Amino acid sequence: MKLSTAIMLTAGLMTGAQAALANSELRDRASTMFSAVPKYPPVIDGNELTAAKVELGKMLFFEPRLSSSHLISCNTCHNVGMGGHDYLPTSIGHGWQKGPRNSPTVFNAVFNSAQFWDGRAADLAEQAKGPVQAGVEMSSTPERVVATLSSMPEYVERFKDAFPGEENPVTFDNMATAIEAFEATLITPDAEFDQFLRGNDSALNEEEQEGLALFMDKGCAACHGGVNFGGEGYYPFGLVTRPGAEILPEGDKGRFAVTETASDEYVFRAAPLRNIELTAPYFHSGAVWSLEEAVAVMGTAQLGTELSDDEVQSIVAFLKTLTGDIPEVRYPELPPSTDETPRPAPMSALN
Amino acid sequence: MKLSTAIMLTAGLMTGAQAALANSELRDRASTMFSAVPKYPPVIDGNELTAAKVELGKMLFFEPRLSSSHLISCNTCHNVGMGGHDYLPTSIGHGWQKGPRNSPTVFNAVFNSAQFWDGRAADLAEQAKGPVQAGVEMSSTPERVVATLSSMPEYVERFKDAFPGEENPVTFDNMATAIEAFEATLITPDAEFDQFLRGNDSALNEEEQEGLALFMDKGCAACHGGVNFGGEGYYPFGLVTRPGAEILPEGDKGRFAVTETASDEYVFRAAPLRNIELTAPYFHSGAVWSLEEAVAVMGTAQLGTELSDDEVQSIVAFLKTLTGDIPEVRYPELPPSTDETPRPAPMSALN
Repeated sequence: MKLSTAIMLTAGLMTGAQAALANSELRDRASTMFSAVPKYPPVIDGNELTAAKVELGKMLFFEPRLSSSHLISCNTCHNVGMGGHDYLPTSIGHGWQKGPRNSPTVFNAVFNSAQFWDGRAADLAEQAKGPVQAGVEMSSTPERVVATLSSMPEYVERFKDAFPGEENPVTFDNMATAIEAFEATLITPDAEFDQFLRGNDSALNEEEQEGLALFMDKGCAACHGGVNFGGEGYYPFGLVTRPGAEILPEGDKGRFAVTETASDEYVFRAAPLRNIELTAPYFHSGAVWSLEEAVAVMGTAQLGTELSDDEVQSIVAFLKTLTGDIPEVRYPELPPSTDETPRPAPMSALN
Repeated sequence: MKLSTAIMLTAGLMTGAQAALANSELRDRASTMFSAVPKYPPVIDGNELTAAKVELGKMLFFEPRLSSSHLISCNTCHNVGMGGHDYLPTSIGHGWQKGPRNSPTVFNAVFNSAQFWDGRAADLAEQAKGPVQAGVEMSSTPERVVATLSSMPEYVERFKDAFPGEENPVTFDNMATAIEAFEATLITPDAEFDQFLRGNDSALNEEEQEGLALFMDKGCAACHGGVNFGGEGYYPFGLVTRPGAEILPEGDKGRFAVTETASDEYVFRAAPLRNIELTAPYFHSGAVWSLEEAVAVMGTAQLGTELSDDEVQSIVAFLKTLTGDIPEVRYPELPPSTDETPRPAPMSALN
């Protein structure tokens, strides 16, 4: 048994009452740092989640005609059947171009305080406008998107229903607002850790509880806290020891590109760790496939500590208890293109 | 009112009894040429549709890791939310390569007597093996597919359940068999035409009934008959008048590539017309976006007749009654990649 953690958990060395007390102390401590994913989507200021808006947002999320090629939808890189991302180091976009950073999961993204690895979008609605226009992703324009959606009577009706009272509801902004509404429903409640937090002692086994204790003791929770175990603050990658260029490529200076402040060089938003076992490969570079390796890298780079193999194993075992119930998504039925729908961009056009 | 069709349908010129008789005659005649899409999937020889196999097949249908890039799944080009295809002239595949022919809809494909535009696959299981290996589509190999699926314990379990009693159930053939089982469930019953065929006189309005009569009178039904309104026989495109190269590219000789028989030059399988309003653009070249234009081209090319605008309109109105109930598909939850899962092919490798 490891004695390096603050709390001894082995039942063999504790009475039932002692074990219950240890559980209770661990839970109390964890409760000050983390919270459970709620069963229902959160309230979003200025974006009421009506059924009409969420359903429209789902259609738009799956709509490849938001891309100029008509091939790429939000779901291409944020696949709801694959942990909300694409299992690629960095995504493939328009013209088979390689994106610059690893695609973050859409699951629970609504709980992040800002979006993208560098936090350059304040919320999911602002985020949604980025990839649609990015030349290496969907490569479209707001004008093309509005022309596309306006060309299909069913979309026009659905925008009217989702944004009642607006004279011209089919707008690029409303597209983003509807997508945000749908994405807010993509939350994963009831992870084993959340069950433990709610009072179920047996939801985490000994190794997992040990991993949780380590996660707090070693300092991981300083950056990876809250409901999403991250996604809230910005920290230099390589706070103590800068990782090699294979993990931290020199050309990507992170949040520096947003703030143009020297101290923001190589600063990134702490990755949210919910469902982390479903979101390999890891880091903004997507360079590390193994969760064990990712945890070890974090130890040296951020905490200046060489975690033992046993410690890494325990932390990984704990991190796997952050996998929640995957949302059920019925594939939406998208309306047919019409004579007015802008045609897919020619294959050769990489713009 | 048009008098060119055999049956006068305008209620204003007919008594109720006459109209009912006309409906009945039209239905009787149609029943000799077409049949309704059944409510339940058909029986497939040698491939029992168990729940375990259909669910596995659905996962595989949505599984981008069957492609070497990990980007492209069956659903990319046969999108169940978009009429079972991709609204592209020809599909985009591995490395952003352009496929040679328009992607046929997966809906009701189980009723076709053979698969692909040239009928080179006898059934859906044989078909499924093609795109997975094609260099311009998913660009994988049977060995890579088996290694990929074997690397994820959940797939191994699901293959065991879907193919009970087999010693090594994770095979390329079984992948195809499971995909066929799922695809067999993608049928679209209860189209307005089918309701009419079953005895509901009001399921088709006057113009639609006139279009149906024209469809039979003009000879369309000779090639586009059966449950799928096509998908059964092979015919030269340009039987009477060869269309221009923009519609019938000279380089694609159709079934000739399969049979190497001179008389099969530019011969293609008659396209199934179920849900045709959802499957633009049309023809194997995907060169024609308008259904009206496609019908007119068929008139001159195959029937040697210049259909009037009114006739085209009526036929199109009728064809739109072939849109059935779109199958409900819950997005499957795919297992995470493991350390043993072959990594996505490098971006630069177009092989």
